[in-house]
Amino acid sequence: MSAYKVGIVGITGAVGQEILELLTARNFPVSELRPLASARSAGKKVEFDEKTWTIREATPDSFEGLDFAIFSAGGSISKLLAPEAVKRGCVVIDNSSAFRMDPNVPLVVPEINSHTLREHKGIVANPNCSTAIALMALYPLHKAFGLKRFFASTYQAVSGTGAAAMAELKNQVAAWAAGKPIEHHVYPYQIAFNVLPHVDLFLPDGYTKEEMKMYNEGRKIMELPDLKCTCTCVRVPVFRAHSISIDAEFERPVDVKVARRAISEFPGAEVCDDPANKIYPMPLDFQRKVKCGVGRIRKNTAFDNGLAFWVCGDQLWKGAALNAIQIAEEMRNQDLLPQH
Amino acid sequence: MSAYKVGIVGITGAVGQEILELLTARNFPVSELRPLASARSAGKKVEFDEKTWTIREATPDSFEGLDFAIFSAGGSISKLLAPEAVKRGCVVIDNSSAFRMDPNVPLVVPEINSHTLREHKGIVANPNCSTAIALMALYPLHKAFGLKRFFASTYQAVSGTGAAAMAELKNQVAAWAAGKPIEHHVYPYQIAFNVLPHVDLFLPDGYTKEEMKMYNEGRKIMELPDLKCTCTCVRVPVFRAHSISIDAEFERPVDVKVARRAISEFPGAEVCDDPANKIYPMPLDFQRKVKCGVGRIRKNTAFDNGLAFWVCGDQLWKGAALNAIQIAEEMRNQDLLPQH
Repeated sequence: MSAYKVGIVGITGAVGQEILELLTARNFPVSELRPLASARSAGKKVEFDEKTWTIREATPDSFEGLDFAIFSAGGSISKLLAPEAVKRGCVVIDNSSAFRMDPNVPLVVPEINSHTLREHKGIVANPNCSTAIALMALYPLHKAFGLKRFFASTYQAVSGTGAAAMAELKNQVAAWAAGKPIEHHVYPYQIAFNVLPHVDLFLPDGYTKEEMKMYNEGRKIMELPDLKCTCTCVRVPVFRAHSISIDAEFERPVDVKVARRAISEFPGAEVCDDPANKIYPMPLDFQRKVKCGVGRIRKNTAFDNGLAFWVCGDQLWKGAALNAIQIAEEMRNQDLLPQH
Repeated sequence: MSAYKVGIVGITGAVGQEILELLTARNFPVSELRPLASARSAGKKVEFDEKTWTIREATPDSFEGLDFAIFSAGGSISKLLAPEAVKRGCVVIDNSSAFRMDPNVPLVVPEINSHTLREHKGIVANPNCSTAIALMALYPLHKAFGLKRFFASTYQAVSGTGAAAMAELKNQVAAWAAGKPIEHHVYPYQIAFNVLPHVDLFLPDGYTKEEMKMYNEGRKIMELPDLKCTCTCVRVPVFRAHSISIDAEFERPVDVKVARRAISEFPGAEVCDDPANKIYPMPLDFQRKVKCGVGRIRKNTAFDNGLAFWVCGDQLWKGAALNAIQIAEEMRNQDLLPQH
């Protein structure tokens, strides 16, 4: 079986660690791991596949000889180094938002639009975390009823901001329990026992960049250029799984049983919906799960052809590392990965 | 100045304590306080107006000689004892859901429909907490643009469940910080570091009773019998202020500046909306505030005549105790309170 030379840019971050774990858990064949990070982390070691690998500084030359690299180090690093990797024959799977809306870059959720991978020109974009998770419910419902419009309000875990934010929530709660002052450095305000209607930067029209990702990326991934959506993104004091409340309007009449079946037959989601027995998705239950959970599925009382529902999914997995590895797996299946 | 003989049913609960504090803070003239509770608490003392008052068991005869009583002890106590109080000439301001949809009972948010108070037949209902807070934004926007339809997703504090739930969140976090197992008794699942898409009981159609309160009470209070709404109610690990994300469609074209002005001119709300300077309402900032905060006001990208916005308000105040006292104040202004 062929094995790959794999780079991971941002190995020391929250997503980098999950990529290592998922490559192992999913038996992805790796002949060489090249962990890359900023100069500050160069020389540190990571364990993978019962071997020790040394972190190198990510530079244009770091990509020589690699088959593909997963980037999780933010948009500016991706903009700088992804083209350098591509020049050197290394396919890039990019977790940042840098290339997602580039018409020459496929933006891929493998369960939805893996056919677009074959058009790649070296870079494949991994979607925004909330978008990927929301689509695990929206896409099968779109196939069943024809999606016309939706409203999403998110309950986003701190993992989406990275390892420092996870530490900040932990530290704030520990300080609170010890009766000490609560400090904040990562977020503009305390996140423990609070919610912040603010994820990513604000744009002049009052939306955040995160909110417009759901709008734009949803259209591109589902190939619905006229889809209407409004999203409100909110950070909550949860560690690592996102939740999303969605109201959706469809072209055709809806039926809750048909909706449940459509979701349960979709590979990226599981139905978790038995209110009488207090069964619904919760972020604590959807940490470290491959499938996203969909529940609270009911007829929308404000739209004739509408549904309301609730989705939970692991931000670090389907929202980032898992989807990136699923892209690599699918590219391998389609014979789209080089082998040096 | 006339002063009143005031009963408080549920004096030992989270709302009861806030009622005492607000009666003092707002200089409501009380000549006699009659604190009432279950037999278990009878004989305990409360401090009010620099005097000590003894808690009595709430029974039909407890209301003899009272001018009005505020009930905050749940629907079954209200159903049992409110008619007994009325029989004895005591006006009832009821915080429970028992009488809210009764066509003979005014359901009142004083800033919106205080004119309905004069039709009271002894009982006035205080609305559901999320509904009262959402209406602090929805009503002024309705007056400005004509409300047609809205979608609400809530981020509800544990105070809405009562003092035991506030203690449960505190205990769970303390246990977590001490590395001890997390126990739950009040909620069906852990609330610390989690969110529960479950507030109040589930109905056969998949909605919760709480979600249908927003639907039904919003229609009654705003006198909009055809208003369409879907609500998803979610409990978050926040102590005492609720937040609500709302997408609303209006009859007439909307304008963000006009929307801000309408809200700022409304007595129950303040605009807290300057995203460029990271100014938006957060539950931590809207604890113990008389006005609810409205921010993130922007054009809705999924409706032609739509807005998206975010509201925060203290569940124990505007969502319960404060609104009840505002009803008493307004009834006093309208000379609708008896004096024994």
